[in-house]
Amino acid sequence: MTSDDARPPSELPDPRSLTREHFDHVARVTTRWTDNDMYGHLNNAVYYELFDTAINAWVISASGVDVTSLPELGVVAESGCRFFAELEFPHPVDVAVRVERVGRSSVTYSLGLFDSRSSMVAALGHWVHVYIDRTTRGTVPVPAAVREALARAQEARA
Amino acid sequence: MTSDDARPPSELPDPRSLTREHFDHVARVTTRWTDNDMYGHLNNAVYYELFDTAINAWVISASGVDVTSLPELGVVAESGCRFFAELEFPHPVDVAVRVERVGRSSVTYSLGLFDSRSSMVAALGHWVHVYIDRTTRGTVPVPAAVREALARAQEARA
Amino acid sequence: MTSDDARPPSELPDPRSLTREHFDHVARVTTRWTDNDMYGHLNNAVYYELFDTAINAWVISASGVDVTSLPELGVVAESGCRFFAELEFPHPVDVAVRVERVGRSSVTYSLGLFDSRSSMVAALGHWVHVYIDRTTRGTVPVPAAVREALARAQEARA
Amino acid sequence: MTSDDARPPSELPDPRSLTREHFDHVARVTTRWTDNDMYGHLNNAVYYELFDTAINAWVISASGVDVTSLPELGVVAESGCRFFAELEFPHPVDVAVRVERVGRSSVTYSLGLFDSRSSMVAALGHWVHVYIDRTTRGTVPVPAAVREALARAQEARA
Repeated sequence: MTSDDARPPSELPDPRSLTREHFDHVARVTTRWTDNDMYGHLNNAVYYELFDTAINAWVISASGVDVTSLPELGVVAESGCRFFAELEFPHPVDVAVRVERVGRSSVTYSLGLFDSRSSMVAALGHWVHVYIDRTTRGTVPVPAAVREALARAQEARA
Repeated sequence: MTSDDARPPSELPDPRSLTREHFDHVARVTTRWTDNDMYGHLNNAVYYELFDTAINAWVISASGVDVTSLPELGVVAESGCRFFAELEFPHPVDVAVRVERVGRSSVTYSLGLFDSRSSMVAALGHWVHVYIDRTTRGTVPVPAAVREALARAQEARA
Repeated sequence: MTSDDARPPSELPDPRSLTREHFDHVARVTTRWTDNDMYGHLNNAVYYELFDTAINAWVISASGVDVTSLPELGVVAESGCRFFAELEFPHPVDVAVRVERVGRSSVTYSLGLFDSRSSMVAALGHWVHVYIDRTTRGTVPVPAAVREALARAQEARA
Repeated sequence: MTSDDARPPSELPDPRSLTREHFDHVARVTTRWTDNDMYGHLNNAVYYELFDTAINAWVISASGVDVTSLPELGVVAESGCRFFAELEFPHPVDVAVRVERVGRSSVTYSLGLFDSRSSMVAALGHWVHVYIDRTTRGTVPVPAAVREALARAQEARA
């Protein structure tokens, strides 16, 4: 693992300077008593639960399609996160999502987590969804409704 | 994010060819009904729970120190995972840990997940713990007992 | 555990006819992708996570005291839930809390879960917190700030 | 569901005197770093995850049927737990299951949790599964393979 490994996409500025405005969508989520671990802060695995939640809720909402009932499943091929600041229950958290790249069968996202009371990014994640067939588990193209919703989000930036 | 980002440390072979023997320690863990998500396989966030569990349990056991009661806390500065194959409850999983680098205040680990019935790696993770002071939350050196236990593990390979 | 324990408090009507108005406090919480289990609905253990979250967040807010830093810990001595209807991510959920009884060292709550789009109760829980000393783990009286906050809630009903 | 349902079965002695021998099946499970909450012990919701896991794993194993692929789903109609002693990661836990009653469409279980190093029961749970049709969500009879497996367990006691 070199220090390059979690480098944010080149079109983004220094990661610690990111704000909600660099992302396509922001969702406020509530935290839970059990999210805090023995060290009194949100456990790192919870960050990934929140990324998963924000991506899927946004794709469902933006595409108008309940992704859980499609024949294609978006499964995680790769994920990662850099943690800059602690987050704690009972404070809500904002999860920000940005579409980085839509390939033939994969979509890459960047994610930012913000304490709801702060403008500083607490964590920066990346996430690669690969679409597979629910039955054969083989790779398939990104579903059209999802592709179109993500394209609209990318266009809305310009 | 380029395809280099999650590159396994240079001393490791192609990640999909990794076996349990490439790691310093392997722990068998049980899976849970709730680990399977709507897609019928272990949710990706569970992988990180298992990494966290395996690293901490091993450090506790190898160092003879209950890390949860130390004045220094090992908190996650960065983590990541590439997912190669699905895992499912009710099958147990083997979590393999390898110490990659021990710095002044940080430790980098590689992690492998294996279906207990298979020799093929199902996921490859990386993990950076940074030690902070429980009260001030400032960076501190890796605790001596942890450093020594990790050095013993690295020496045992040779 | 006597057979009385799971019976809805006598001052409450038939449990399935309960509405948000029968409770002292209602908090809206977001659900997560991982909350849905293989059967496509919120896993039953998540209900208890939401009960725990709603009780503690309300006690923190109503008492003005961060209960996680008190010398007394409110730990669960007993809990239970009857499940009437399925709940699903991505829909938010309302968690309703009612103080049933404040004893010397214990507090009993009733809890209702509601789909945010519905007036029908989806689940009815009960919960007994017993206060113990953080160090000795022996039973101690309910902390004064908590007792006063709960008394105010009960008085506000009249 | 009547108020009788949560009463400990009459054939069982005082709950705190229960040992593993009072149950039909015992499974050892590993605990996780995230199972411990801010108070340094297994969070109460984890107990329900372990109950769910032990019941389903045992039914799958004893019936020879992967219950997750049946047209009938066993969903939780009621659950409850009394907590007698704290449990902590990193120690494994034994989850003990006993079939209390098999009705037309429901099954009632008692559950015991034991620290793997102790003979004293740390928690006693009860659990009611009701079988519903995966599509219509209406109540259906307990699947034959499940009913037979549970009957065999009850007979093996005599």
